[in-house]
Amino acid sequence: MDATDPAHLTATRYEIDGHVATVFLHRPHRHNAWTGKMHAEYRSIMAHLENDPAVRAVVLTGTPPAFSVGGDSDALAGHAERGGYDTGLPVEIARPGHGVRPEFDHDFAWHYGFRTPIIAAVNGACAGIALALVAFCDLRFGAASAKLTTAAPKLGLPAEYGLSWTLPRLVGTTRAADLLLSGRVVTVGDTADWGLWNEVLPDGESCLRRAREYAVQLAATTGPEAVRATKQQLYADLLRHDVGASIDDSKRRMHEAMGSAEYREGVAALRERRSPDFPDPTPVNPTS
Amino acid sequence: MDATDPAHLTATRYEIDGHVATVFLHRPHRHNAWTGKMHAEYRSIMAHLENDPAVRAVVLTGTPPAFSVGGDSDALAGHAERGGYDTGLPVEIARPGHGVRPEFDHDFAWHYGFRTPIIAAVNGACAGIALALVAFCDLRFGAASAKLTTAAPKLGLPAEYGLSWTLPRLVGTTRAADLLLSGRVVTVGDTADWGLWNEVLPDGESCLRRAREYAVQLAATTGPEAVRATKQQLYADLLRHDVGASIDDSKRRMHEAMGSAEYREGVAALRERRSPDFPDPTPVNPTS
Amino acid sequence: MDATDPAHLTATRYEIDGHVATVFLHRPHRHNAWTGKMHAEYRSIMAHLENDPAVRAVVLTGTPPAFSVGGDSDALAGHAERGGYDTGLPVEIARPGHGVRPEFDHDFAWHYGFRTPIIAAVNGACAGIALALVAFCDLRFGAASAKLTTAAPKLGLPAEYGLSWTLPRLVGTTRAADLLLSGRVVTVGDTADWGLWNEVLPDGESCLRRAREYAVQLAATTGPEAVRATKQQLYADLLRHDVGASIDDSKRRMHEAMGSAEYREGVAALRERRSPDFPDPTPVNPTS
Repeated sequence: MDATDPAHLTATRYEIDGHVATVFLHRPHRHNAWTGKMHAEYRSIMAHLENDPAVRAVVLTGTPPAFSVGGDSDALAGHAERGGYDTGLPVEIARPGHGVRPEFDHDFAWHYGFRTPIIAAVNGACAGIALALVAFCDLRFGAASAKLTTAAPKLGLPAEYGLSWTLPRLVGTTRAADLLLSGRVVTVGDTADWGLWNEVLPDGESCLRRAREYAVQLAATTGPEAVRATKQQLYADLLRHDVGASIDDSKRRMHEAMGSAEYREGVAALRERRSPDFPDPTPVNPTS
Repeated sequence: MDATDPAHLTATRYEIDGHVATVFLHRPHRHNAWTGKMHAEYRSIMAHLENDPAVRAVVLTGTPPAFSVGGDSDALAGHAERGGYDTGLPVEIARPGHGVRPEFDHDFAWHYGFRTPIIAAVNGACAGIALALVAFCDLRFGAASAKLTTAAPKLGLPAEYGLSWTLPRLVGTTRAADLLLSGRVVTVGDTADWGLWNEVLPDGESCLRRAREYAVQLAATTGPEAVRATKQQLYADLLRHDVGASIDDSKRRMHEAMGSAEYREGVAALRERRSPDFPDPTPVNPTS
Repeated sequence: MDATDPAHLTATRYEIDGHVATVFLHRPHRHNAWTGKMHAEYRSIMAHLENDPAVRAVVLTGTPPAFSVGGDSDALAGHAERGGYDTGLPVEIARPGHGVRPEFDHDFAWHYGFRTPIIAAVNGACAGIALALVAFCDLRFGAASAKLTTAAPKLGLPAEYGLSWTLPRLVGTTRAADLLLSGRVVTVGDTADWGLWNEVLPDGESCLRRAREYAVQLAATTGPEAVRATKQQLYADLLRHDVGASIDDSKRRMHEAMGSAEYREGVAALRERRSPDFPDPTPVNPTS
């Protein structure tokens, strides 16, 4: 059985169009509230996409009208009854983005290790664990009226899943402290100039459309191996103080890249004043 | 003798209203210029407030019209005569926010370890050491016309009290370099979109009023133990690169919190669609 | 032979006016495209300026109309033919900004160790390695219509020369990921509120003029030893997590500075309500 067979997916869905995949959180009757099943399906889909060499960018969104309102309230009540947290994840679970760095081999942090850019299209309400998920994406497009909240302190909970790590690096400590400590509800539009969004769109539909356009453009104009390397550099450098080591690493990577077919195509296209036609990358794990 | 007895305070004052305390730097004849006595009183008050379980947020401001113009010029001249720095602090001094992390057990850095959110209301001019103090608060509200300056390079001084550490993390390195290297005077309004302020208000009066409203709202709607934990996460994560350790820490804290009375009340209020009524936290140091 | 004798410079030029030097990338027939020769000349000039005690600020710009379009396309093609990177630098090369911290003793990172503020005036197009250079300057002024691009992923290249380290610290990770992963072209005006610029001006001429005004003002009003110390603090603190060590370091530096002639002049000027007249600093390397 293939865990990503559309016939078996109940809390998510996905589609691939050319080089761009779109993944939907999909429990619309519950505003895409997060469950262990959704989490497991999402990881299976992402592992599948990472291993498809034609996929050069992933857009993550929710089936309208919400993105995801966070942990399902039934599950929250269950934790209270049990007096402890149960992620609801099965023991065997897909491991996309793993193996790049040990710091990334953790729930949600694996997004940093994932082969391609992951672009969040926050088409509607986004709360709690779903906001933590969005913060681990590489790029973010948002619908101006979509509501955001960390929610946690209003429930008597600490910051969820690294949101206290990611948010200050996205919006600075002042605004991160505001959202994390107060749990107050803001809209995407309220935070339009906070550095959290690559673009704010009028509504959910235009938000998803714009995120896909960006993904299509990126896939058509950039070398997939170069993008993979750049993403690794971005998060490696976010995790280290040694700027000199970053310089050395970039020089080593530049030297390596300059021996590649991808670079030869890039330079040829530049000199011939035409669009480049980059080959698909080698699969991460061609045996699976 | 109680160091925080209002009758003994000469350079500061404070008041408590419900869950919110307001602390005033209070040498209005000198625009609240900073002295060793003010520093010692401020720490005594903060230690007192930290140990009062009813206090859930502290607002820090200055008696109008200034917030604080920084080191008193008589003291600055004294340092020049002596040829060295004298903080003017007594040997025995209160230690609020201490014991959370060794990196925080230093002058001003203890704000990061303090039990509750500390909200600066920059109602008027704020310079030098007072700007360093404001940068260590968790949240910041400012009056648009209030003047700001690091002052130090114009006096032949280096960055004071960690301002070279905090400021880039608040406003990015470009703007931090501007303020730190030039010492030029800007207004709160000039920096309104720098990420330094949670909100910019028209004047000092509205600035203090808004900061208090925010504090009252936060205290009424969030679990105090959750807020304490979140603040610890925020600054722990600002001090570490390992995003995976942050994930593990948040999962451990979530599991613990889900066994608490605070969480049970938060979930019950959510499901009953009512406001939560969170209990006061256990005092930091109930024997003192 | 003096490597900085204007008669020997072909890819750069510079001038000194009072306390402010201006360095031009100067291959206008190629839009100041970067070459090994330009790189070597630039380092020679900067080493010369660092050792001139009268110089208190350096403005870096390009001979109009461009700032610099990055690696020369002939050189890029040469790398592709050779299948590897050749910086084109001679073995013997000047080492400005070296010896402050080992992390800074690397290509471009030495800007962080350089004695004085370095102010970029991005008067026109700025791409690839030139953008990496601008990101290592302390302050940035830009012409609104000037085009910017990392360029690398469109050529099949990873992030160049630490740009994946610097850019997130300048503009946050969301916007850095946008520029680094897509390589798309934006204008300075598009990024005006990203925290990348100290000021955005209408055109290249006003951009250079404003950068110089800022430099003149800074040189006239700040103590050069204090500015040198502050710059060291800024980047030391960007490289360390330990906020407590930053506090200790600032107290030690304050104590030292308060015994200096510079501080005595600063305090005297403050109390006498006059402009300070700070002495020139001791040369970095008076024997060379």
